[in-house]
Amino acid sequence: MTNARAWTLKQRPQGMPAHSDFELKEQPLAPLQDGEVRVGNEWLSVDPYMRGRMNDVKSYVPPFQLGEPMDGGAVGRVIESRADSHKEGDLVQHMLGWRDVATAPAAAFNKLPALGVADHQWLGNLGLPGGTAYWGLMDVLRPEPGQTLFVSAAAGAVGSAVVQIAKAKGLNVIGSAGGADKCAWVKELGADAVIDYKAQPVLKALYEAAPKGIDLYFDNVGGEHLDAAFATGRNNARFAICGLIDAYNTTEPTKLRYLARIIAARITVRGFLFTDYIGRMGEFYGEMGPLVAGGKVTSRETVHDGLDAMPDAFLGLFSGGNMGKMLVRL
Amino acid sequence: MTNARAWTLKQRPQGMPAHSDFELKEQPLAPLQDGEVRVGNEWLSVDPYMRGRMNDVKSYVPPFQLGEPMDGGAVGRVIESRADSHKEGDLVQHMLGWRDVATAPAAAFNKLPALGVADHQWLGNLGLPGGTAYWGLMDVLRPEPGQTLFVSAAAGAVGSAVVQIAKAKGLNVIGSAGGADKCAWVKELGADAVIDYKAQPVLKALYEAAPKGIDLYFDNVGGEHLDAAFATGRNNARFAICGLIDAYNTTEPTKLRYLARIIAARITVRGFLFTDYIGRMGEFYGEMGPLVAGGKVTSRETVHDGLDAMPDAFLGLFSGGNMGKMLVRL
Repeated sequence: MTNARAWTLKQRPQGMPAHSDFELKEQPLAPLQDGEVRVGNEWLSVDPYMRGRMNDVKSYVPPFQLGEPMDGGAVGRVIESRADSHKEGDLVQHMLGWRDVATAPAAAFNKLPALGVADHQWLGNLGLPGGTAYWGLMDVLRPEPGQTLFVSAAAGAVGSAVVQIAKAKGLNVIGSAGGADKCAWVKELGADAVIDYKAQPVLKALYEAAPKGIDLYFDNVGGEHLDAAFATGRNNARFAICGLIDAYNTTEPTKLRYLARIIAARITVRGFLFTDYIGRMGEFYGEMGPLVAGGKVTSRETVHDGLDAMPDAFLGLFSGGNMGKMLVRL
Repeated sequence: MTNARAWTLKQRPQGMPAHSDFELKEQPLAPLQDGEVRVGNEWLSVDPYMRGRMNDVKSYVPPFQLGEPMDGGAVGRVIESRADSHKEGDLVQHMLGWRDVATAPAAAFNKLPALGVADHQWLGNLGLPGGTAYWGLMDVLRPEPGQTLFVSAAAGAVGSAVVQIAKAKGLNVIGSAGGADKCAWVKELGADAVIDYKAQPVLKALYEAAPKGIDLYFDNVGGEHLDAAFATGRNNARFAICGLIDAYNTTEPTKLRYLARIIAARITVRGFLFTDYIGRMGEFYGEMGPLVAGGKVTSRETVHDGLDAMPDAFLGLFSGGNMGKMLVRL
């Protein structure tokens, strides 16, 4: 191999991104410097937060640069090392995705503990989505057994983990998903009730599923889902805002008819980011590792094959085409 | 006096209320029962939260009943008592407003401590609006000296107290108000910057007043103000939602363009009610009493005279016609 191939951002999208926004480029592989490691990527992640990085807006992660390789979560094996810490064959997780071969100082590549889980789980239940689910639930929502939790996009990578962790913690769980197949899977995951948001208004279905209202809301969607949570939030309800996928590809504002209930019901709403918990990965692995290895938290993946398929996989996040975690296998 | 006069709710308004929604009725004064007290009201309060009570919707205070006397904050003096706890001439605060004479068991009438403040302050800085300002700031926002606070409707009864308490606590305070007169008063109260929301877009003005963003937001308004707070909220910003007056008289949803910043900036938004702090009135009087008596927290009142003027006073809350606390003097 003499060249690496990487996806670059060709132009910044307005609204929904398209294939024409991406360009695959080749780059020669320079000899390794002292302290550097080269990794052959085996799994690449696409995640909704990447849409924000396509805009030229300062946020919690810097925007992608035009013409430059994009990046994101990846799992691979060391193919060459000039660092004592890493040796050929080591399994690593890192942020130099959207490419087939990653070269960087050794510190960029996290060697993974032996938890007895499949390699791609490091991009799923033991990676960004699983960690987001875990911390949003355990640190932001801080549930008590018996409380009623509503989680939107419950068939997504984050939502499916939320459903299962919440059931393991003794909660009454209502999930929403789009379409009968996804809803059936969410039910299999253990949800007590499932709302098909494509088949009925969310608010009406949520009232039926939780006649006494909800105590906790884990939001991946925003919009109509968030409004329904305001409408049904019980006194002192807590909302964790993880994602607002309804808002990512539109210039239309979010419309809330029931926002005023935040006062009457003394609702607390908090946004959060997985990256704030990076210092607590040991705690996360310690709880989540056994849940995943023991089959208490399972997953489905929607897998695209080959680097060429990266844009397909990414765009699929916004068309509702994926069940569980969306991945690209190289 | 043989009859009492009380305002009743004639019909439930859609959108903005009107004079035709109210009807003044006379009721004969029955002889007092053992344990009852009769109070001659001297000051009556009108407050935005009463708008919600005109709807037939369960909320934190029950709806007004059609054809029945309305109620709300009032200050008066005991004119007759058949309870040992209360004697003629005692100054009391109570919730049997919207009428000239109130009759009830003694426990309904709170005897007021001697804090050296004007009688009407018990409906203002030492009453519902002052307490709302105090607890929203001190318990929900929990400010640290040097932080930047934005408060909407800063010339209102709650907002003007927020500005002054916040300055006493060492904050950088930006207030919004509608029109030059109100803005000048907010500046007099000590605000470091004032935004005239009738003269310019709130967001643009807020960016100029706080180029580094805001740490705290005390919301009385919602809508465009709340959206501007989301746009300018710094990391870990905290919002206290006290009122959403923009939403009370409309069926239009609140439109938020910058809601997604709740995630990137890890913003916490919490609704709250003064009534949750009723058990801590001693603490509130202990801090706020000296601030009011010593002139650190001042007030203006917009006073209407006579029971007949109650609807005028109430409707004035929604037309932006009042500076400071809106009161009716009997």
